[in-house]
Amino acid sequence: MPQDELQDQMLDVASSATIPEVPSVAGEDGIAPPLGDMSAEEFRRHGRAVVDWMADYFERVEQLPVLAQVEPGEPISKLPAEPPESGRPMEAILADVDRLVVPALTHWSHPGFFAYFATSTSAPGIFGEMLSAAFDVKALLWRGAPAAQELEEVTLSWLRQMIGLPKAFSGIIYDTASVSTLHAIAAAREGLDLRVREDGMSGRADLPLLRVYASEQAHSSVEKCVITLGLGQRSLRKVPTDAEFRMDPAALARAIEEDRAAGHLPFCVVATVGTTSTSSIDPVPAIADLCGRERLWLHVDAAYAGSAAVVPELRHILDGSERADSLVLNPHKWLMTPFDLSVLFTRRMDLLHRAFSLVPEYLRTLDREQEAVRNHSEYGIQLGRRFRALKFWMVLRYFGRDGLAARIREHCRLARLFASWFEAAPGWELLAPVPLSLVCFRACPPRDGETADECAARLDRLNEQIMHAVNASGEAFLSHTKLHDCFTLRLAVGNIRTTEQHVARVWQLLREAYERLDPAGGG
Amino acid sequence: MPQDELQDQMLDVASSATIPEVPSVAGEDGIAPPLGDMSAEEFRRHGRAVVDWMADYFERVEQLPVLAQVEPGEPISKLPAEPPESGRPMEAILADVDRLVVPALTHWSHPGFFAYFATSTSAPGIFGEMLSAAFDVKALLWRGAPAAQELEEVTLSWLRQMIGLPKAFSGIIYDTASVSTLHAIAAAREGLDLRVREDGMSGRADLPLLRVYASEQAHSSVEKCVITLGLGQRSLRKVPTDAEFRMDPAALARAIEEDRAAGHLPFCVVATVGTTSTSSIDPVPAIADLCGRERLWLHVDAAYAGSAAVVPELRHILDGSERADSLVLNPHKWLMTPFDLSVLFTRRMDLLHRAFSLVPEYLRTLDREQEAVRNHSEYGIQLGRRFRALKFWMVLRYFGRDGLAARIREHCRLARLFASWFEAAPGWELLAPVPLSLVCFRACPPRDGETADECAARLDRLNEQIMHAVNASGEAFLSHTKLHDCFTLRLAVGNIRTTEQHVARVWQLLREAYERLDPAGGG
Repeated sequence: MPQDELQDQMLDVASSATIPEVPSVAGEDGIAPPLGDMSAEEFRRHGRAVVDWMADYFERVEQLPVLAQVEPGEPISKLPAEPPESGRPMEAILADVDRLVVPALTHWSHPGFFAYFATSTSAPGIFGEMLSAAFDVKALLWRGAPAAQELEEVTLSWLRQMIGLPKAFSGIIYDTASVSTLHAIAAAREGLDLRVREDGMSGRADLPLLRVYASEQAHSSVEKCVITLGLGQRSLRKVPTDAEFRMDPAALARAIEEDRAAGHLPFCVVATVGTTSTSSIDPVPAIADLCGRERLWLHVDAAYAGSAAVVPELRHILDGSERADSLVLNPHKWLMTPFDLSVLFTRRMDLLHRAFSLVPEYLRTLDREQEAVRNHSEYGIQLGRRFRALKFWMVLRYFGRDGLAARIREHCRLARLFASWFEAAPGWELLAPVPLSLVCFRACPPRDGETADECAARLDRLNEQIMHAVNASGEAFLSHTKLHDCFTLRLAVGNIRTTEQHVARVWQLLREAYERLDPAGGG
Repeated sequence: MPQDELQDQMLDVASSATIPEVPSVAGEDGIAPPLGDMSAEEFRRHGRAVVDWMADYFERVEQLPVLAQVEPGEPISKLPAEPPESGRPMEAILADVDRLVVPALTHWSHPGFFAYFATSTSAPGIFGEMLSAAFDVKALLWRGAPAAQELEEVTLSWLRQMIGLPKAFSGIIYDTASVSTLHAIAAAREGLDLRVREDGMSGRADLPLLRVYASEQAHSSVEKCVITLGLGQRSLRKVPTDAEFRMDPAALARAIEEDRAAGHLPFCVVATVGTTSTSSIDPVPAIADLCGRERLWLHVDAAYAGSAAVVPELRHILDGSERADSLVLNPHKWLMTPFDLSVLFTRRMDLLHRAFSLVPEYLRTLDREQEAVRNHSEYGIQLGRRFRALKFWMVLRYFGRDGLAARIREHCRLARLFASWFEAAPGWELLAPVPLSLVCFRACPPRDGETADECAARLDRLNEQIMHAVNASGEAFLSHTKLHDCFTLRLAVGNIRTTEQHVARVWQLLREAYERLDPAGGG
């Protein structure tokens, strides 16, 4: 068909009555146009307003209560039960962020956030997320976003060098440590050559019970991983820890021996560098020795603490990890990178690929690139992948290795400083060593004539009350754990805005609460 | 200890020589300060520059080649092999986005992006991501981010109403459809009451082979899910489809019957509303009947097409889905929401909770909120969760239901229009119906004296060449699939900026390539 006939035909069809056309005039009064996105002019105006809002937010966040002071159901009660039929002006929506969202948030960007693991977003990371949201790539194949795939390879090679892992390790970005660890254990399972990928584990009398080992202090995600993978909670054997909450390698060796004797199949050990309760560090060199002898996959969970290896004098926390099969480290925890970005390093990318590669026809590429490139979607559950490497690249370049190390070093200094106050204060005690930026402590005023049980119950109650009092102040947010069955307060330093004055203020709030709640015991 | 003594002690320790303090003066020349984040003033300046950059990007994206014109390894070769030791000024980093990132991107925000499923970011969604990166919450517990949890419940209730699912469905946000479907199948597995969570599937002679069913046209993620869950590829039975690529319910019934006879245990059927290759829609009402009779979990994969149910005259695509146990829909595909945001609706949140709940002490909350709230981390693998509901809330409010419906309706109109040109043009054919916004087609110039095999090979080659020619133009990006073993071109409309002129241009490019590559066959 000649070109002009074709054009005629196109116009004919386009104007046919059966396919009505929608008018596409620009929107008015700040509402969305009938079709298409917001105009460039409005994007500029509102976008700048959002940037200014964020700058103001960071300046005033310290005046906001760090822990949300709302009741369950309160945010929902302020929102309409039915979906909006027509669009609203952007101004009104942004105003509602102030009115509805901010008061119902716990402010992780507040320098007084010391709960769980305190974490930090940062300006270069936010700019990276902004650009990533505009590009909106789904990095499912190399060709779908070459920069995403290759920037991921480069930044993870940089990170590998920064923490001193050998070149044999390759990295891949997932969303969270739970998912990174899931992939590590799945690769370990694939390495068993038991055709679990092909034949699965149900309806097979030939399969022994598969065993994974982690310490009693390991993160709950390890247990969730074995549940998800169909291995079941029974497959996870929790190894006892020593007085400082570190896995006992002798106990691990005994467990493996027992399991082999019982006909089970040990295949993976998860060691933790920086446990969630206390930041204790498992003796990885001894565990690596054992894994080498027993031919078990060694996965190191360094989700929180791994970042500290960027600091030269703290590099030793990863001693032994160079012999691991895989290691997870979360830049979104302690490398000033907005959530989410978790990194799995492994020397067995081949097994990860064997466990997860599946390329349907509609994703096959046809030219020579097929051979030359790595498509990270073939190394995991998720097919679409956000362009997370961009923010990480911007963070690494803006702060540099030295700048990141300085911040982590300062966080550790603040934690040690905070801990030093407890050492000197009667009526308080530290409950675990402070190798990094987490302090575990409690108030422990003595009282005469109590049984041990009565004392334990009293101290648990007192410390819980102290925690609630501090959190109710809005100036700081602490969380807790249990150590040796004692209610334990945790202070985790990790926010980029946290300074000495913020930890000093927590100490003051703690003392005030203590004196109010236990006037007799007060020092 | 009295307050003033305490202060003295704090100061003493703070100034002790063993804990050196790092100077904290403001940075110069646009580089990071020694500690802390970028100053508010600089944040404002650079943030506005990023906003302007994004506005410019959207204005010029059409002038960029939609498919990245780089060779594998080219982006990496332009980046240093070693990590930056010290920080760089933000200006330099942003300049490198232009220099290094943009040329190595495939532009998913380009209106000529028609590959895979075209998707779309939008201004309100980008603003939501910006705010979310500043808040940086990890919505692991309600109290960690009440607004995140409750906005998620509200927006998903809105979405449920918009697509006409009954109130018995609750929603939860995950990152991708792969992960949503993984959770659905895991919940189905939990519903078997076979103690898979507790005891796993290895070392159990008592477990029969568990079976999942999906059509031959189902997304590859279903297979990846059964691999991950330890069910294995063997557990997935692929059901034949009819001439229009829809699951054959009679074949499904036969497969289930055969499996039961062989002692296997059918437990889950995945029906697809909008398959990836052709957007075909499985006969969900008939499949739901069967699942009801056989007591199987019905999961509906409506990741792409489900959004179309927002359009009143397209609501029928979800007929039967109201009887499903779960359904996945990706707002990041066709609801103008930046990647990632996938929604799983299910009437069995209880089973999802039973499959994934695991609350360690350090995440236990202690007050009455425990009873009243839902913590979405107890309903999935991931513990930390991004504040994704914020961008979705902003998108829903800015466009409103009507605005989203108008855009989806327009995309469908463009696809039908594009398809209509093929119906009228000799030498071209449609290879599948066009129920939504995806068109499957090929050039098929006749040639005398060929065997069927020769003809098939010639047409495959020709269409592959046509696709590469169109993609090499930089003006459009198409992908392909195989239908009835024929190389098939796909045009998927889904970007908010795509207009009639863009699909008309593809038709012109296709014709030009065709005439150049097959002058004899040209119409």
